[in-house]
Amino acid sequence: MTTRHPTSDPGAAPAPGGLTDTEVAALDAHWRAANYLAVGQIYLMSNPLLAVPLEPEHVKPRLLGHWGTSPGLNLVHTHLNRVVKSRDLDAICVWGPGHGGPAVLANSWLEGSYSEVYPDVSRDADGMERLFRQFSFPGGVPSHVAPETPGSLHEGGELGYSLAHAYGAAFDNPGLLVACVIGDGEAETGPLAGSWHANKFLDPVHDGAVLPILHLNGYKIANPTVLARLPEEELDRLLRGYGHEPLYVTGDDPAKVHRAMAAAMDRALDHIATAQRVAREGGVGDRPHWPVIVLRTPKGWTGPAEVDGLPVEDTWRAHQVPLPGVRDNPDHLRQLEHWLRSYRPEELFDEDGRPRPEVLAHVPEGDRRLGANPHANGGLLTRSLPMPPLEHYAVPVDKPGAGRHEPTRVLGNFLAQIMAGTTASRNFRVVGPDETDSNRLDALYAATGKAWQAATLPTDEHLAHDGRVMEVLSEHLCQGWLEGYTLTGRHGLFSCYEAFVHIVDSMVNQHIKWLRTSRALPWRRPVPSLNYLLTSHVWRQDHNGFSHQDPGFVDHVLNKSPEVVRVYLPPDANTLLSVADHALRSRDYVNVIVAGKQPCFDWLSLEEARAHCARGAGVWTWAGSEGTAREPDAVLACAGDVPTQEVLAAAGLLRRHLPELALRVVNVVDMTRLMAHGEHPHGMTDAEYDALFTRDKPVVFAYHGYPWLIHRLTYRRTGHGDLHVRGYKEVGTTTTPFDMVVRNDLDRYRLVMDVIDRVPGLGARAVAVRQAMADARTRHHAWIREHGVDMPEVAEWSWPG
Amino acid sequence: MTTRHPTSDPGAAPAPGGLTDTEVAALDAHWRAANYLAVGQIYLMSNPLLAVPLEPEHVKPRLLGHWGTSPGLNLVHTHLNRVVKSRDLDAICVWGPGHGGPAVLANSWLEGSYSEVYPDVSRDADGMERLFRQFSFPGGVPSHVAPETPGSLHEGGELGYSLAHAYGAAFDNPGLLVACVIGDGEAETGPLAGSWHANKFLDPVHDGAVLPILHLNGYKIANPTVLARLPEEELDRLLRGYGHEPLYVTGDDPAKVHRAMAAAMDRALDHIATAQRVAREGGVGDRPHWPVIVLRTPKGWTGPAEVDGLPVEDTWRAHQVPLPGVRDNPDHLRQLEHWLRSYRPEELFDEDGRPRPEVLAHVPEGDRRLGANPHANGGLLTRSLPMPPLEHYAVPVDKPGAGRHEPTRVLGNFLAQIMAGTTASRNFRVVGPDETDSNRLDALYAATGKAWQAATLPTDEHLAHDGRVMEVLSEHLCQGWLEGYTLTGRHGLFSCYEAFVHIVDSMVNQHIKWLRTSRALPWRRPVPSLNYLLTSHVWRQDHNGFSHQDPGFVDHVLNKSPEVVRVYLPPDANTLLSVADHALRSRDYVNVIVAGKQPCFDWLSLEEARAHCARGAGVWTWAGSEGTAREPDAVLACAGDVPTQEVLAAAGLLRRHLPELALRVVNVVDMTRLMAHGEHPHGMTDAEYDALFTRDKPVVFAYHGYPWLIHRLTYRRTGHGDLHVRGYKEVGTTTTPFDMVVRNDLDRYRLVMDVIDRVPGLGARAVAVRQAMADARTRHHAWIREHGVDMPEVAEWSWPG
Repeated sequence: MTTRHPTSDPGAAPAPGGLTDTEVAALDAHWRAANYLAVGQIYLMSNPLLAVPLEPEHVKPRLLGHWGTSPGLNLVHTHLNRVVKSRDLDAICVWGPGHGGPAVLANSWLEGSYSEVYPDVSRDADGMERLFRQFSFPGGVPSHVAPETPGSLHEGGELGYSLAHAYGAAFDNPGLLVACVIGDGEAETGPLAGSWHANKFLDPVHDGAVLPILHLNGYKIANPTVLARLPEEELDRLLRGYGHEPLYVTGDDPAKVHRAMAAAMDRALDHIATAQRVAREGGVGDRPHWPVIVLRTPKGWTGPAEVDGLPVEDTWRAHQVPLPGVRDNPDHLRQLEHWLRSYRPEELFDEDGRPRPEVLAHVPEGDRRLGANPHANGGLLTRSLPMPPLEHYAVPVDKPGAGRHEPTRVLGNFLAQIMAGTTASRNFRVVGPDETDSNRLDALYAATGKAWQAATLPTDEHLAHDGRVMEVLSEHLCQGWLEGYTLTGRHGLFSCYEAFVHIVDSMVNQHIKWLRTSRALPWRRPVPSLNYLLTSHVWRQDHNGFSHQDPGFVDHVLNKSPEVVRVYLPPDANTLLSVADHALRSRDYVNVIVAGKQPCFDWLSLEEARAHCARGAGVWTWAGSEGTAREPDAVLACAGDVPTQEVLAAAGLLRRHLPELALRVVNVVDMTRLMAHGEHPHGMTDAEYDALFTRDKPVVFAYHGYPWLIHRLTYRRTGHGDLHVRGYKEVGTTTTPFDMVVRNDLDRYRLVMDVIDRVPGLGARAVAVRQAMADARTRHHAWIREHGVDMPEVAEWSWPG
Repeated sequence: MTTRHPTSDPGAAPAPGGLTDTEVAALDAHWRAANYLAVGQIYLMSNPLLAVPLEPEHVKPRLLGHWGTSPGLNLVHTHLNRVVKSRDLDAICVWGPGHGGPAVLANSWLEGSYSEVYPDVSRDADGMERLFRQFSFPGGVPSHVAPETPGSLHEGGELGYSLAHAYGAAFDNPGLLVACVIGDGEAETGPLAGSWHANKFLDPVHDGAVLPILHLNGYKIANPTVLARLPEEELDRLLRGYGHEPLYVTGDDPAKVHRAMAAAMDRALDHIATAQRVAREGGVGDRPHWPVIVLRTPKGWTGPAEVDGLPVEDTWRAHQVPLPGVRDNPDHLRQLEHWLRSYRPEELFDEDGRPRPEVLAHVPEGDRRLGANPHANGGLLTRSLPMPPLEHYAVPVDKPGAGRHEPTRVLGNFLAQIMAGTTASRNFRVVGPDETDSNRLDALYAATGKAWQAATLPTDEHLAHDGRVMEVLSEHLCQGWLEGYTLTGRHGLFSCYEAFVHIVDSMVNQHIKWLRTSRALPWRRPVPSLNYLLTSHVWRQDHNGFSHQDPGFVDHVLNKSPEVVRVYLPPDANTLLSVADHALRSRDYVNVIVAGKQPCFDWLSLEEARAHCARGAGVWTWAGSEGTAREPDAVLACAGDVPTQEVLAAAGLLRRHLPELALRVVNVVDMTRLMAHGEHPHGMTDAEYDALFTRDKPVVFAYHGYPWLIHRLTYRRTGHGDLHVRGYKEVGTTTTPFDMVVRNDLDRYRLVMDVIDRVPGLGARAVAVRQAMADARTRHHAWIREHGVDMPEVAEWSWPG
């Protein structure tokens, strides 16, 4: 054991009446038991209680897992147990270093929550053997804290999001304590570094508490960590600069660390309780400086000090499997046995492998156990939103294209009513990177404010301690908050610039993986879906141009588990309402809705919109000219608001100039309808697809995003050879709305030309029409260079009805 | 004008011999000129010098752009000019709030660098009118600082990366000062918050200096910012906790702010000069606490105080266009004219529109101008790497599959030689999130250390102040550093877990956009490519499982500009060498290389590897059984190391059990070869494609990633209907290598079955072979559940030769 870390607790004066020796012994027994079980999971196939001397065949053939962080996680869990029990706390913990799966699994097994969910892994010797064997074993359990782990709502593999998840869980849960272990590796990531400021958004009255525990074990995979190597004064300034009051627990002498940790926990919880009481009884005053515990203990603490002559404990070498050669190297095998026996398992487990009473002395009971708290299985607590009737918010549509509305503004009124309806239940939030207003959702402010705990000025508008609109210029925080919020059973919407939602590509990957795995676990109850409203989209970046143009998030999520992913492109206000209504009622999905905020023609009445959205894709007979023909000559298809407008303009031109052409217009709202039946639950059968798109007629498809996505979704369809897709071709700049579609060949004139080029035998009249379209494009180019605005025939176009 | 910000400079004592009144007047004249030009760009089409009273027709029909940040950027530029000139500094500036494009364009025009690059925008009245008109105008220039902007290497649209870019530019540029303006909006993002700690990686001897200028103008789009509303003491602690020495400049009285800003700049630069001198002359001691300037001035400073009765200056309402109704609202028009005339343009420009001498008194000359410094046009400074002969590093291959190597380890030796060869030139770095060692690139440490300026312990290995391997647990920092490094003309490689490179999806979007735009600008010289080595890939996540499994980055980048993007999947060590050699010699690309770190069969000799990589895709005749048949019965194609192994194993099985089958094996290294000719510069013609894959024979394609990507790339090819793709289907977990391929139907047995199912008329023998394959899969399932390792027939398989 190293002695680099003299035990100290500079932040906390000795607690009067600290732990008794009996309490220290019991906590230490629990910690040793958890450490023993963690090592056992990494190494053992059998002989779990070391009833006989350890032999190579007791050891797994493949040694996998992460030991380094496990003893620290076990220490935190042991001490959280104590305070949860002694204070009867409603608490969960987010395990940032969740790759230390063995630790959290060990604790769940010790407290009994594991065996309740997985009865075959019983709390006895047989169950212990199963616990060990299944870990990182084919067909067993993953090596990280994962959906399979009771009490978890956070996968600790992709580091960076623990603290954001913790805040998300704490919002609108005033009785909840969310502890959050942050590894010093994770602390180097940008998203985590940005998450510290989430305390400026936590309302001491209506929200619960977050207790960050920064675990400085000194090393990441192969390097020291930045925060562990800061001078203490610099670290202290940093944490105070983040708005926290640090409490330090440092050491490697277990008994002393137990006392220091218990004292720090008590101080932190007293501090939290006082801050909440003051705000709740006396009104919100200055923003509280919430406590943070800094726990500095050796990486791989209590593991082998040296292996093959190299230091391991308290170095990066303790990260994964400290003794790699146990099956073949008798020396390693001996070291492993010595290590395991150092925890004195015979004191911890009875002869049947059950934890002895002393080990469990400070373990809470029932739902108070960290592995059983329902907040970490949020579906248990989910209440449906009070959904108002869409009729109150729908725009009147007597005939298609007669009126125009900003779809997101219409949606905003609907969301405002949901916000108002949840004033008491407080189970709905809207998050976004400072774009709620710009995205025309400002009606929300009639129902709630923007969450803000920092200083205010007289000119400020809509800031409120208890606001449930969350605005921070960090897509990572928005996403992390909403993940934590929905995983604990509440509802929300993330309104985001379409291009910049890629900032959270990797986070949504992890969330989809989480939901996919959760859905297969019967004990996990469905949670509210995570809903995106992507607006300020690729076609309207007048102020910002190329850097703000990327419609690829749809492509990204469609690579993911189809049982989780839904993608909607409503073409007008009423379809947006219908889609949003569906998304906010749904569970266990990631719903991506792409919709514009600019004035847009109203195509469908609410009733039509509902029917159209229920089908997901359909013929707009009023827009085409196929009449009673069994099959049209050509299909103009569209998905997205701007492509729909261009397709309808093209259809209007074709109807006027080539009335003999039997033209069908198809609109797709639900992108997954295009996928093959069997590849996605929404996928059309081939018969359905053919009925819409025909088997052999040319289809010109105007799509909101990258055109090849449509090919990827439809390559198995019969008529695929006759499918021609227009979309965004990465030609972006600061220009007019119509110039954007011209530059990407998605404009009405080009679409008319595309149809003419693909329908045989149209004759001389069609040649002339085609030339007129080409001329219109030329006219456009000259006009905008001269005037900087779109031609009147485009700017003032409306559907001829 | 508001008076919320009393001018103060708590960090800096009054400079002895501060600015003279003449100097203040000149700096103020320059600042006013820049402000005038910024407003002009947002509003004016003509009448640039206000020679006649302002009329509606002088005003643009669409008013676009961001005023709010512009006066602050103009102030910083004005004062950087002064110190660059007075100290003869080699300096560039990264403009974090680069959406304030009008400011940087104004400054470039004032100093003359703009007209040198764009002679039609001359430094006179005509040029001023062009400068105004072209801004955010169709066919003109984008609204942000962009590649088109002289002196820029950073687009300020997607916020978060300015400081990382600044550090990347400063590394290995010991004579360079990189100023970096950070908006308080951007400061809320995770990547920016994490970037502050980059100062722990900056060597005062071999690197240049970074001077962050935190601009607190108080508001983002529609909200106050977190940092602007911190109590001053808390902000001070935060910045000191980040390791900086803050200098404050606060105010709204221009004359006072000029004096305070000049004093702060002088103090900061003195501080930097001293720290560098001490380290360079006396050796590196304690990590310097570099200065940071905190500039607190009103948003939209000097703009309209109120519009339509609402406060605008010093509120979020100043963010974009403060007077929106100028063409129609005479009151707004009058306000605009008043605003423009408040800068007293007649004092700033002569009657021909040229800046008067006083305006330019502190503007540097030649390459010292911020718009002309060659570091911001890094191709001017790029020197090729000393590429060692691949022969020295290639593995010997007498026949395919006889030996095995870890490809990335072989690559590591090659990279180490490049690292050694650049000891003096210091123009090569390898960055990664703490995975260099785990990715088997540790040979690098023989040539250089890991950059580290924080404290060290005796057990540390390879840490060095001057190390050129950069390890930090932040993909954002790795990416940002390498972007800054390559854009200033140096070379590098980002080695990353395949799944977690999605963390920087949005950053690579922006970088590809930057390169695409740069390539079209003749005055921008080509810069070294940005190279990814994606290893620890989807098929080998033994320690980590599902959360670490995602091969979708290839899909992501293939949505982007084809002239910039290259994707390589080398199947063995020598092909990896060849591909890496090519990538490191290339310019203006984003090269994505996916390669494993686990032992892998050596298939090709160096000579064969070079030829194969040059073709990008080819028949491996030795692996198939087509003999002299004109066309094979079936094609087994593969891309990626694991799929290649499974395809060769399948080919071996087919050769043994169905020798009558004429089988062709095709390997694809360069994924863009599959794309249509004309859609990508590397795309095969249809004739080339048909010659490889046939026109009508079944193709079973085993691909490393999501299978539908292959369909997306090939949907136009003749034989597409007979293409059957296997790949990763998002079925991931912690399991054995072979179990991973079985779970995703990519295993050898499944591939044999796929071929048999698709070749008609193979007869009874084939039925038996197919059953044997199905039995082998069943055997596998039973075996791994029992043993936890792969069956010997798989684990010990080798190519029969």
